[in-house]
Amino acid sequence: MRGAVLHAPGDVRVEDRDRPTIVEPTDALLRLSAACVCGSDLWPYRGIEAVGGPTPMGHEYVGVVEEVGDQVSTIKPGQFVVGSFFASDNTCEICQAGYQTSCIQRQPGAATGAQAEYVRVPLADGTLVATPDLPADDLIPSLLAASDVLGTGWFGAVAAQAGPGKTVAVVGDGAVGLLGVLAARQLGAERIIAMSRHEPRQNLAREFGATDIVVERGDEGVAKIKELTGGLGAHSVIEAVGTQESMMQAIRATRPGGHVGYVGVAHDVSLPGEELFFSHVHLHGGPAPVRQYLPELIDLIWNRTIDPGRVFDLELPLDQAAEAYRAMDERRAIKALLRP
Amino acid sequence: MRGAVLHAPGDVRVEDRDRPTIVEPTDALLRLSAACVCGSDLWPYRGIEAVGGPTPMGHEYVGVVEEVGDQVSTIKPGQFVVGSFFASDNTCEICQAGYQTSCIQRQPGAATGAQAEYVRVPLADGTLVATPDLPADDLIPSLLAASDVLGTGWFGAVAAQAGPGKTVAVVGDGAVGLLGVLAARQLGAERIIAMSRHEPRQNLAREFGATDIVVERGDEGVAKIKELTGGLGAHSVIEAVGTQESMMQAIRATRPGGHVGYVGVAHDVSLPGEELFFSHVHLHGGPAPVRQYLPELIDLIWNRTIDPGRVFDLELPLDQAAEAYRAMDERRAIKALLRP
Repeated sequence: MRGAVLHAPGDVRVEDRDRPTIVEPTDALLRLSAACVCGSDLWPYRGIEAVGGPTPMGHEYVGVVEEVGDQVSTIKPGQFVVGSFFASDNTCEICQAGYQTSCIQRQPGAATGAQAEYVRVPLADGTLVATPDLPADDLIPSLLAASDVLGTGWFGAVAAQAGPGKTVAVVGDGAVGLLGVLAARQLGAERIIAMSRHEPRQNLAREFGATDIVVERGDEGVAKIKELTGGLGAHSVIEAVGTQESMMQAIRATRPGGHVGYVGVAHDVSLPGEELFFSHVHLHGGPAPVRQYLPELIDLIWNRTIDPGRVFDLELPLDQAAEAYRAMDERRAIKALLRP
Repeated sequence: MRGAVLHAPGDVRVEDRDRPTIVEPTDALLRLSAACVCGSDLWPYRGIEAVGGPTPMGHEYVGVVEEVGDQVSTIKPGQFVVGSFFASDNTCEICQAGYQTSCIQRQPGAATGAQAEYVRVPLADGTLVATPDLPADDLIPSLLAASDVLGTGWFGAVAAQAGPGKTVAVVGDGAVGLLGVLAARQLGAERIIAMSRHEPRQNLAREFGATDIVVERGDEGVAKIKELTGGLGAHSVIEAVGTQESMMQAIRATRPGGHVGYVGVAHDVSLPGEELFFSHVHLHGGPAPVRQYLPELIDLIWNRTIDPGRVFDLELPLDQAAEAYRAMDERRAIKALLRP
């Protein structure tokens, strides 16, 4: 089968790879309907994360179940399914508490290499959620978004306790940040401030529910958020970047007693204890337990209440994965969808 | 009047100081019934925090109102009052949200120099809470504890979301940690693990409600907490020290999705972003908004439901403040009460 492989920073190639097979009796094999490039794929693409030899890429996926292992009981061949980037049993105490990405059986490498024609998903019963029926083609981008960026933005909004009466600020205008705006809106936030200096992203943020746009960053961005909130800071801040600057911007833009929900994968971040102590903020985040939200998110998409697939502003055949990476790296595209 | 002054690390003297007076119309002047030495007083005493010239010490206080300013309306001369170490108006949006220590009018230096005969308290109506009547003498230590260490341990337990069905671990066996145990018990925690290697403190922890004692520290302490919690970690961890080691011990002893309530004043703490991200813990803490809890805590003390004053295992006349500091520094005393 064809699949995208990262050979070195900046060097993505679509090549022939072995088609995956059922290895464990709890596995499912999916024929992918769509795949995409994640902001987190850009870390190794940019050489910020080391690349240890040729690496099959992609961890967001939707598709049709081709085959299941002997112990898979709820997921059936022929179903259209959405899954999370971490496999989880969905039954352990940690999963039941809503933290499937910290499942005691979790497999972070699950569904690695999903920018391809087929993917093997471990712990299929716990990891995958089937849609009510085969979806209309125009729903596929939104269902694909649910598998990571929507679920991640949603967790950021939940962790930041976005809700009625709250002013929510969003640091980061990538797909996760933009879908954090959508999530905050769905959760009933009163005012949503998107921090972005890119017009197409500002426009999408507004369509998703942003009431205000702040173009300033860093200390100036913090000052602007304070100015918009009577000097106090936002009740809720979603951090969707993962750098030292973005984390400090999020913490400093939050009022005492407020909540920071951080979902940008942290890279070289070190939080100063004294400042955090006196900030009085709540801090919560990490790898989003997308599995927890999938049934609700699939329902909202199926009923066409939300249209998160709008973050895909570039669609290419899988064979042009290299161009998809380039477009995202150069910020020409918010997020690229690949059709196998 | 007589008052304790820190001249240099290790050098506390009780000297004649000017008796404070009403400065602002919102001030109250208190004649102190008791004062005490705080764990945080030991930071400058040990030279870990700089001492910038002779510094009047003490920020925990109970006493009788001697005089009030023209704009003080609810607090009256003759009342016995308990206050917090930060003055707050108790009416701003941040106070109303329960974060009086981040009040927009807060005065962190409020009641500085309370190891003395008299103290001036700013924003008296917002800061002070009167007891129902003049208290019996044996209630004074507990009411004094409410002014800081009990309120701080309580906030730690609330921030850690201690409650029914929860396993709570407490890092730190000073007065705040021990009263964190008491708070967790009052909040209904099922299991409370005190981390302490000092027998008198272990015994007091048990009296306050600890069900388990762990003597190990650092990585070994974390391993022991995991062993006691089916490999998962505690639901709630109260951090009551403020060092890098204690913070990491608290974070690592918490299960994914669990809560760390940190109330030890952070000193040279730097939290690694990646580890925090993948830990999936909730982090909340800071200077305890003691004022929020005072009405409830005074009630529990007045009804003799709790006896937090038991943390005072040394009582001395104010003139022997130097010995009180020495005893706490050498860990001969958990907490020292001073009678002016």
